[in-house]
This record gives sequence, C-alpha cells and structure tokens, in this order.
Amino acid sequence: MMAGGHPGQRPATEAVAAAVAELAAAFGNRASINESVRRNHSHLRTHIPPQLPDIVVYPIDEGEVVTAVSIAARHGLPIIPFGVGSSLEGHCNAPLGGVSIDTSSMKRIIAVHSEDLDCVIEPGVTRKELNEHLRDAGLFFPVDPGADASLGGMVATRASGTNAVRYGTMRELVLGLRVVLANGTVLRTARRAKKSSAGYDLTRLFVGSEGTLGVITEITLKLAGIPEAISAATCSFPSVKAAADAASMAIQMGIPVARIELLDVHAVRASNAYSKLSLPEKPMLLLEFHGSAAGVKEQAESFGAIAEECGGEGFVWTDRAEDRSKLWQARHDAYWAGLALRPGASCLSTDVCVPISRLAEAVEAAQADLLDLNLLGTIVGHVGDGNFHVLPLIDPENADEMGRVETFCRRLVDRAIAMDGTCTGEHGVGQGKMKYLVEELGEPALDAMRHIKQALDPQNLMNPGKIIMTSPHS
Amino acid sequence: MMAGGHPGQRPATEAVAAAVAELAAAFGNRASINESVRRNHSHLRTHIPPQLPDIVVYPIDEGEVVTAVSIAARHGLPIIPFGVGSSLEGHCNAPLGGVSIDTSSMKRIIAVHSEDLDCVIEPGVTRKELNEHLRDAGLFFPVDPGADASLGGMVATRASGTNAVRYGTMRELVLGLRVVLANGTVLRTARRAKKSSAGYDLTRLFVGSEGTLGVITEITLKLAGIPEAISAATCSFPSVKAAADAASMAIQMGIPVARIELLDVHAVRASNAYSKLSLPEKPMLLLEFHGSAAGVKEQAESFGAIAEECGGEGFVWTDRAEDRSKLWQARHDAYWAGLALRPGASCLSTDVCVPISRLAEAVEAAQADLLDLNLLGTIVGHVGDGNFHVLPLIDPENADEMGRVETFCRRLVDRAIAMDGTCTGEHGVGQGKMKYLVEELGEPALDAMRHIKQALDPQNLMNPGKIIMTSPHS
Repeated sequence: MMAGGHPGQRPATEAVAAAVAELAAAFGNRASINESVRRNHSHLRTHIPPQLPDIVVYPIDEGEVVTAVSIAARHGLPIIPFGVGSSLEGHCNAPLGGVSIDTSSMKRIIAVHSEDLDCVIEPGVTRKELNEHLRDAGLFFPVDPGADASLGGMVATRASGTNAVRYGTMRELVLGLRVVLANGTVLRTARRAKKSSAGYDLTRLFVGSEGTLGVITEITLKLAGIPEAISAATCSFPSVKAAADAASMAIQMGIPVARIELLDVHAVRASNAYSKLSLPEKPMLLLEFHGSAAGVKEQAESFGAIAEECGGEGFVWTDRAEDRSKLWQARHDAYWAGLALRPGASCLSTDVCVPISRLAEAVEAAQADLLDLNLLGTIVGHVGDGNFHVLPLIDPENADEMGRVETFCRRLVDRAIAMDGTCTGEHGVGQGKMKYLVEELGEPALDAMRHIKQALDPQNLMNPGKIIMTSPHS
Repeated sequence: MMAGGHPGQRPATEAVAAAVAELAAAFGNRASINESVRRNHSHLRTHIPPQLPDIVVYPIDEGEVVTAVSIAARHGLPIIPFGVGSSLEGHCNAPLGGVSIDTSSMKRIIAVHSEDLDCVIEPGVTRKELNEHLRDAGLFFPVDPGADASLGGMVATRASGTNAVRYGTMRELVLGLRVVLANGTVLRTARRAKKSSAGYDLTRLFVGSEGTLGVITEITLKLAGIPEAISAATCSFPSVKAAADAASMAIQMGIPVARIELLDVHAVRASNAYSKLSLPEKPMLLLEFHGSAAGVKEQAESFGAIAEECGGEGFVWTDRAEDRSKLWQARHDAYWAGLALRPGASCLSTDVCVPISRLAEAVEAAQADLLDLNLLGTIVGHVGDGNFHVLPLIDPENADEMGRVETFCRRLVDRAIAMDGTCTGEHGVGQGKMKYLVEELGEPALDAMRHIKQALDPQNLMNPGKIIMTSPHS
C-alpha cells in the first residue's frame, strides 16, 4: 500500500539547507541530522514506507518548540511533532522532509490536582510514566492503548483502548491543551473547569488533529481514582454472535464494565499455542469490573447471568489480583501470540468500529474474507465500543499477498462504513487511511476540514500529507 | 448590561426586502413577518434587550432549511437558528435583523437504536418529548438543563445540567450531526460508531457553536438505560465548605453519583418559605444515585458516611419514588422560591464553573459580594462539576442596582477565571458573555475561533454578533 495523497511541494533545497543550519545552530547537541536518528523519527511500525525528516530537534520546553516552529516556518520547512513513534498509520513520516520535533525531553509533570482529579503535564510523558507517578496519590489515567505511548501522541491520535468503554477516550479525558501554532503563537484551548460552554471547542479540535494544526506543549488530563476493588471474568461462547450479544446486553443493562474484550477463535488458538493455555477453542470474552468490593462482585455475577443466557460456557471470575492476570493472559499476549502463528511475518493492525448491533456481523464477515482471500489473521476487539482489530499476518515483500491484504482492508472498511461505522476507531488517519475518509464522511466534511486546516496553518507546514489532502493549488 | 460586540453591518434595506419577499414566497403560510411573532423569536428570557429578526420561517425538513439558508445567503441576510428560545444569553437575538429559522416543526424521531443506545432525531424535538418517546424502550436521554429545551438548542449551547456529573454533557453525548452550512451545503460530521479517530472532530466543533457555524438539521445522540433502581439523599452541612468537601470526597472515591446539587442557606430559606418546608437553615446537598437495587443502597450509605465525616447533619436517603420527589422538592422549586423572595423582581442566572477544589471559596466569596453590593440572591450548584449559579434578584429598570449587578457578575467571573475556571459552565456565550472570553481564553484562542468562523462562514451570515466579534474589516 502506498502512503496517501499529495502533501504539497517539498521546499527548495536552499531553503531546507538554511532552515536545517539555523535549527542546528539553535539546538546545538539537541539537534541531529544523523541518518539513523532521522530514520528512527520516520514511520517504522508497519509496512508503510519510512520517509525521513531532514533534521530532528529535542526541545526541552514550550519556548524551544516556539523557536523550532518559528525557524521552520520562516523557511517553509514542514514540522512533524514526534512522541515515541508508536503510531500505526505513518503519522510521523516526513513525505516532504522537514523538522521532526521530538518531545521526549518534555517530561515534566507540572501539577497533580488530586482533589480535582486532574493533572497538567508536558507531552513527552508516557502513559506508564504518568501512572507510575500517580499511583501513590491513589489515582490513574485510564486510557490504555497498549503501547507505552507519549501522552502528546495519544492526544494527537485521539487514542483509546481497553478502558474506553467505562472511562472514555482521549476525546473525553483531555480538559485543555497548550499548542504552538504554525505562526509561532501559543494558544491555550481551555481552563481547568470540568465543563465549559465558552466558545468553540478548541480542545476537541486539537485532540485527534495528528499534528496537522499545531504542536502540543502542555496537556491537562482528567484522572480517575484507583478503584477500591477490581474483578475480572472470562467466558467462552459458541459463536461471535453469542459473545457480542452478551457484551451488548451488559452495556444495555448499564453494568459499568471497565473493559470487555473479545478474542475470536483464531486468537484463542494462537494464545493456547503461544502461552501454553488450554482455553476452549471458541470465541471468548474477557472482562474487568471496577468499583467497591460488593459492587465488583455484583457486576461480575450479573454478567455471569447474562453470559449463561447467551449460551456462554466456563464463566469464571475473580477479584484476586494474581488470578486476574492469569485470566487475562490470553489478551495480554494476543499480539505476540498472533505473530507466532507465522514466524517471520509482520502484522497489520486494522481498526474499524461499528455500532455494537452490527459487531457480530462485521467480525464474522471479516473472518469469511480472511478465508476467501487466503489470509491468516486473528481478531481482537474492544467490543463494548464496537471497535475491533483484524490482525492479518503479512509478508510485505510478497506483492500478491499484499494485493489480497489491500482487498481485505478495503472490504473491511467498506462494510464498516455501510454499517454506519468508521475506518478508524482509535489509530487515526495518518497516511494510511486518507483514502477512506471521503467515503466515510463525504466531501462537505472533508472540505470543512480543509478550510479549518488552511485557516490555522495557511502555509500547510504542520505535518503535511496527513488526514486530508490539501489542494494542489494551495 | 449591553449586548456584546460589533456584529458587523446590517444589509442594505433593498437586500433585506428582497430576501424577505423571496422567503415569504417560498414558505407561504410557514413564514411570518408579524411583529409579535418576530418578537417571540428574539431574546425575551433575561434583561438583555430583544432584537427582532425581519422574518421567521418554519421549515419542515432539511431541504427547506437549505432553501431558507440559500435565499438568505444570496441576499446577505443574517440567519439565526431558533429552538424554543430558552437560552439565557441573547443567543436568538437578531442584532442585524435576518431570518429566524424556527426548527419547531422538525420534530421527527427518525430512529431509536435500542441495542446501540443511540437515537437519530430532528433538532426541534424537545428533551421531554424525547424522553416520553424513549420511556417504553427502557431508555432515556440524560442531559437535563431544567427548561424543556429543544435538542437542537441544547447541542448549540453545549447544555448540561444536573445529570452531567455521571452521564456527561452534550459534548460527550452527541455522536454526530447533520448541519446546513452558510453556503447551503449539508455536512455530516460523523457516523454512528461510538468512537472514531477519523479526522478533525467536526461534531464537537458544532456542539457549542451557538448557530454561528451552521444550522443543525439532524442529531444522533447517545442514550442511557433507565436504571434498575434510583435512590435519593439529602444532607445539611454547617458550611458551604463542609458541603463542598463532602461532594469532592464522593467524586474522588468514585461513588458514581448521578446528581449532586448544592443549595446555599439563602436558597434553603427561600424554599422553606415558598414550599412550606422546615429544612434546617444551612447549606444543603441533594443527591441521586442510579444503579442496581443493592448498588444504589450502597452508594447512598457510602455517601452518608462521607457526609458524617464532613459534619453533615440530618442525612436521609430513600429509594422509593414518591419519597424521592419530596426529598428533592427544595431543588425543583429553587428557581421560583428564589424569585418569591422579592415579588416583581427578575432573576439573572450567572453560570461560572471552577475546579471543585475551589468551589467552596468561590461560593462563599460570591455570598460576600452579594452582601457587599447590597444584592439579594440565592445560589444553586451542580457541585459534582464545580458549576454553580448565583441568582441575583434584579429590577432591570433600576440603573443603580443594575450597575451593582454588573459589578457582581464581573467579580464572579474574574474570580472564577483566576481559579482556572470558566465564565460559563453550560449556558453559553451568546451576546451576554462575549466580554469575558479574552480574559478566559486569551487572544490567540479567540483569533483561532475567528479564523474558523471565517473559514466556514466567510460572509458572517450565521448568527452574527454571538460568541466572538468578527473583525470590523471582514
């Protein structure tokens, strides 16, 4: 598959050289034009080809981000914000070259307001670093996309993950941002009140903007208290439909599940092989409940009754920490277990999300497509949200197979959109999903996005070639 | 107080006449230029002076909204979307004249997806109408701003209310919108998936945009299941500080309170007089818990323990419907009870929201300001969110008093902003709060809003003179 769209024109060689020289001078040993450093700041996580920036800089604070942006803007050099590089759709590629602004030196935890259940941090703090810091205060930040991503990157891609069904996604959990715009001004999107009706929702505009509107320099996040008790449960089901029905009933009945994950039969088989488990080779749900001791018992037992009604087998639950980990092992290992099905292969992570009433149909059709196209892959899903990942195992050097994978992805997305769903529940658009956006949202929506992009970044300097194609004339 | 800002220029008389004639011809008996109709489509709810539109039209569907917008745009006539007119900050005023697009004939409930916990409706459906329709399916829409507002209006002002602490505000509960833009195109912001990372968050951009970016013609809303059980509780406290501490502890401990409302001592006194109650004349919290029968018992009792720890007195709770209403009577009557303190007076509803850790200080300072400025008023608060309303009783004809009220509001807002809060938690900016936005968000944020407005509505036709002043040169 190709990277999407026409991002615009690469600036003239002399302009690039001048900008690079000026950035190198300004950042000294916190700038690098070393090829391996630049390569590590391109997209390396999936089969989307890497596109290297011209220079990488490591600002230590907002003022230095302003410096980098101002120098780049003066020379027309593209600006690509960088967290840890764990994005999956080519978000940190530099199709026109440019300066990669690596925020990993911006790791200050500026304030934790325990009483207000919020904190203020710099964008380079990672999810695990934040939770490590918060633990003693009895708090945690609930968004868990799997990777130990930087919070700046998680804001930029509107990340979510397994806890979203209860706690929400980055969309719900960002209270406010500071952002350096392409013109070098610093914008504050909101203050720290839990809610506000004061004008356009600039916070949400930047959440999910993938670095195309500005560089995030400060984040205020909502936090949650570490629950008094946690219980976990697993259950096998005769079919994906039965498992999805159980998930749907639990949500409808208002059981406040914290996590509810599906593994399809292939993912279960892969886990049995990889993790030496002996789970029934059937679709499986894994759940977690957060609350009071009595509450998590009641929630687990209520779900057990629903599971039984839907034909579930082997329902077990526990509120003991060590047993919880064992119950969830198949989910924790799912990615590596899937990869082990085909040694040497890469794994492509798709990311559709559909209304929950269509989930079983969408998953089963994807399984049929894998068979039909002679592809091997597992499926895991955040089924409380209708979001699932088919993980086909691929050999990017095999053109025929890549063609079939392309067909698979197109069918998967077309079907999700036909079901009133989305081509990306949580990974973002980047370069990889630009081709699906018109189908999903229509030309007027893309046109509005283009106008907004142009209004805030008239030179198209901020992460060009991502999300939307700008007009070739602009 | 004056309406805010310079909204731009009124179109030439001939252009207005031509537009009105064309609209009248297109809408026949669903158009009106009658003065009392036009007056009823201006701002009548508070002391902000009414500004009448030139004509009112009543489209029955999206196609007719496109017709109205297209005619108006061709003649440069301002366009003011209208729901039921329950907004509080002059949102539906027509400072430059224009066409009021009354959506009250657009009341279709297009779909209720019980399994997906969502519904698709037209903007003229009111909150109570929707909940009436949903009841038999065991569902409800949780945002309750008090007034029986139209859902279109609630989207436009980013409304919230008493349930927001548990269920979220319009920001969290709108899944997608259809919107007619100033150029007459129809934009769809999102599909029906519970979450998506597909491009800029256009849904959130229109939520809270107060009609300044387009006319909302269709709304997809998240719903909740009617809880199995509901319990209510009340408790008096020796001070606002003690009550706020109890609220804060309950939130921090993760008790999933559905509502948690504060009445200050003056509001309690007013209720005793108005509703013939004999509540202790002290600050009071009123709570509601939603969940399973066992869950709501546990939640109420857990809160009881917290209340005791904070010096609460007379804690009572019940899970019986008829007793719940009695416990909450003081809150339900609060507005009218407050008004009755000064027969013939009007009531101004302020709307600041602060981090919960600053709530007690903010409320107590507001009480001191009322005393200091010789004003009479009660205070009610959605204290789980840090949002509270001081309701000074006013005589709009009394210039001296209005001056003191103006001082009061300025101090209230300045203090909220200094505490990292907002000038409006849920009412919106409209005309009344434009003057506070720079102080709250800074010039770069307002500039970004201005650029977005200009990008989507270059002629400044959509509800001009609200939220942000457009440049006099544009």
